[in-house]
Amino acid sequence: MAPEREPLGALQQDAARHRDEWGIEFSRIVAFSDGVFAIAITLLVLTIEIPENSHDLTRVLDNQIGDFFAYALSFAVLGKLWLAHHRFFSALARFDPILMGINLVYLAFVALVPFTSELLGDYSNQSIAVIFYAASMFAVSITFTIQIVYSYRADLVKPEMRDLERRMAGPSNLIVAGLFLASIPVAAIAPSVAPFMWIGVFLTGRRVADRVAALRA
Amino acid sequence: MAPEREPLGALQQDAARHRDEWGIEFSRIVAFSDGVFAIAITLLVLTIEIPENSHDLTRVLDNQIGDFFAYALSFAVLGKLWLAHHRFFSALARFDPILMGINLVYLAFVALVPFTSELLGDYSNQSIAVIFYAASMFAVSITFTIQIVYSYRADLVKPEMRDLERRMAGPSNLIVAGLFLASIPVAAIAPSVAPFMWIGVFLTGRRVADRVAALRA
Amino acid sequence: MAPEREPLGALQQDAARHRDEWGIEFSRIVAFSDGVFAIAITLLVLTIEIPENSHDLTRVLDNQIGDFFAYALSFAVLGKLWLAHHRFFSALARFDPILMGINLVYLAFVALVPFTSELLGDYSNQSIAVIFYAASMFAVSITFTIQIVYSYRADLVKPEMRDLERRMAGPSNLIVAGLFLASIPVAAIAPSVAPFMWIGVFLTGRRVADRVAALRA
Amino acid sequence: MAPEREPLGALQQDAARHRDEWGIEFSRIVAFSDGVFAIAITLLVLTIEIPENSHDLTRVLDNQIGDFFAYALSFAVLGKLWLAHHRFFSALARFDPILMGINLVYLAFVALVPFTSELLGDYSNQSIAVIFYAASMFAVSITFTIQIVYSYRADLVKPEMRDLERRMAGPSNLIVAGLFLASIPVAAIAPSVAPFMWIGVFLTGRRVADRVAALRA
Repeated sequence: MAPEREPLGALQQDAARHRDEWGIEFSRIVAFSDGVFAIAITLLVLTIEIPENSHDLTRVLDNQIGDFFAYALSFAVLGKLWLAHHRFFSALARFDPILMGINLVYLAFVALVPFTSELLGDYSNQSIAVIFYAASMFAVSITFTIQIVYSYRADLVKPEMRDLERRMAGPSNLIVAGLFLASIPVAAIAPSVAPFMWIGVFLTGRRVADRVAALRA
Repeated sequence: MAPEREPLGALQQDAARHRDEWGIEFSRIVAFSDGVFAIAITLLVLTIEIPENSHDLTRVLDNQIGDFFAYALSFAVLGKLWLAHHRFFSALARFDPILMGINLVYLAFVALVPFTSELLGDYSNQSIAVIFYAASMFAVSITFTIQIVYSYRADLVKPEMRDLERRMAGPSNLIVAGLFLASIPVAAIAPSVAPFMWIGVFLTGRRVADRVAALRA
Repeated sequence: MAPEREPLGALQQDAARHRDEWGIEFSRIVAFSDGVFAIAITLLVLTIEIPENSHDLTRVLDNQIGDFFAYALSFAVLGKLWLAHHRFFSALARFDPILMGINLVYLAFVALVPFTSELLGDYSNQSIAVIFYAASMFAVSITFTIQIVYSYRADLVKPEMRDLERRMAGPSNLIVAGLFLASIPVAAIAPSVAPFMWIGVFLTGRRVADRVAALRA
Repeated sequence: MAPEREPLGALQQDAARHRDEWGIEFSRIVAFSDGVFAIAITLLVLTIEIPENSHDLTRVLDNQIGDFFAYALSFAVLGKLWLAHHRFFSALARFDPILMGINLVYLAFVALVPFTSELLGDYSNQSIAVIFYAASMFAVSITFTIQIVYSYRADLVKPEMRDLERRMAGPSNLIVAGLFLASIPVAAIAPSVAPFMWIGVFLTGRRVADRVAALRA
């Protein structure tokens, strides 16, 4: 499948591997990424605290409305990010070690969300918790953007998907990253306002991407 | 595989993708759903508390009979729901973004079960805990019903499976949803009675589905 | 693939599905089982407690030698059981709903191991903890034996594997189940002796299976 | 596929199975390993503690800089080790029971990392915590080296990959193992110095492997 037993072997190995040829390898990376997403999203449930020996459970659960909100928000954001990752990886024709490295950094921020989400649920009235949450989500979306940009530059995207994905993945994801970045200074001043900005994440989608594409054209 | 490089691209992308053509994509969604189920079902074990520095472990474990019951019940219910999800997804010919969205909401309720199960195990004598449990299970089964109904309307089900699944998945699942819904007012009055109603979930199956089909015919 | 659109459809659906025809379904069940095993085995790490604000960490870790022993033992036993499950499922030609049901009960006991393992690590000097551990491992191995026996009766095993597996999986697994069962009364009297019996689990293998086969022949 | 129904059956079963023939089996082992890695790497997030009812969250988070460092370090090391495992398993033509056994021991040490990582994050100033961390990482890398060496001896590696992998996997991994081993005595004397040695892990790669190969030639 490739010239072996010659000193230059390492080069070939690092060369971008074609997705079909190396189907098992590609699917392992994809499965690993999906696994981290599935685990992180399911660990979110551990962020909802259960009081011990409480006599008035109703009132206690009332006080944990912040935990439920953080659970729902983080599940929705991680779900949306996973769908985007899912769609983008299906557009890849190949992968290379650098993309795998960026993907690992990206996953490190994804796996951090149960922590920042618990912080948000417990301390939504303190700026630092809201800033942490926004920063971690910004880190997830910006490392995803880096993956997209790199994949185009390194020519890893399927030719027939290039135009479609460029219009979809790129701008839509940059808007998500921008929203979380913009919410950081807002959170520093008014921590209760920032979460409302994040709702915008779910409004970015095809329509916005289409409008951006129309403007470009 | 589809007309690219034209402004209408997004439309084609959203069009329901055929299962065989997009086998890798479909299996990723299925694997992600299975992953969330497997993690949630295995996290249930964390809901059984282990007392620290106990001198009379036997008596302590005795008091945790509620935790064991909640573990067994939740494992059985999640197991049954997973089998239903498993069977239904094998009847799908295609999927589309809306089905993926509903599936994510469904998974958000599945992933919540370790929380509601722990609540039930610790506070089975308080109405609110039992109501929470019943409500979360109702949410899981009703979002599954919505997936089934939508899949039929959007014509995503394999033609040869339509009749079979309509008779199986639909009614059987609605009965499960109905049982959990009906147990909510019961739990409000008599929290210790509601769990007995849930046993009915395991009695719904082929026989009930066949009887419903017979009545229809 | 099967007669559809006729009232008897449900029968065909329940009929044992051939592994190759229903490859995706089979692999989902296998993947789900593997997932529960992988999660349970990795959750074992949470059973090793980390003391907070300890000034003399060395002495504290010394006291947790029981936790390390329980981790190593449970990892080894679950690993061995997974290998056996792995090998047995590769010998199946088909599966049916009853086997799936038994498999779920089996997995419920597998997923319980992180709990019984933590109990053992923390209370290895109390009979009840050792009995719980032995009982949970007995439950895992006996439900596996039931899976094996049922698969043979329901003719789900590949013809070319029947003899091989009968000699391997059956007796070897029964010995494991027997060892854990026999250790329960021992644990009731001398909790510190029972764990030594469990080491026998790792001595059962090909040699024992061959001797049993030789005796039979 | 193999002579059955004869007393020697067990022998054939244990004989190294060809990867393509036993594709499903091989991929299950690979998926199981990936699962343990994905779960362990995602459980790392649970090592970052969240203070309860803190009025000055900023200061509290400041004190947890050690937790964040341990998270980043462990994620990076596990990520790098997974990539190496991933690449090496793609070079295997076959597997056998012994390799599966070594792989399980290897995974037991991988799954232990969330514990040693939490220890490091909480007690980075105590030698014993740093030694534990270095020892667990040494155990992971040395059991991986044993897998590599065994696979070559048992002729399980694809012929066309032998030279390439021998130059890559072997030396690079031995250097990683050596670095962690060497850091143990350092940690005993100066616990704050050892972590700096670990950064060297990320500098070993192609370049070092190429230099080693050049020296050999």
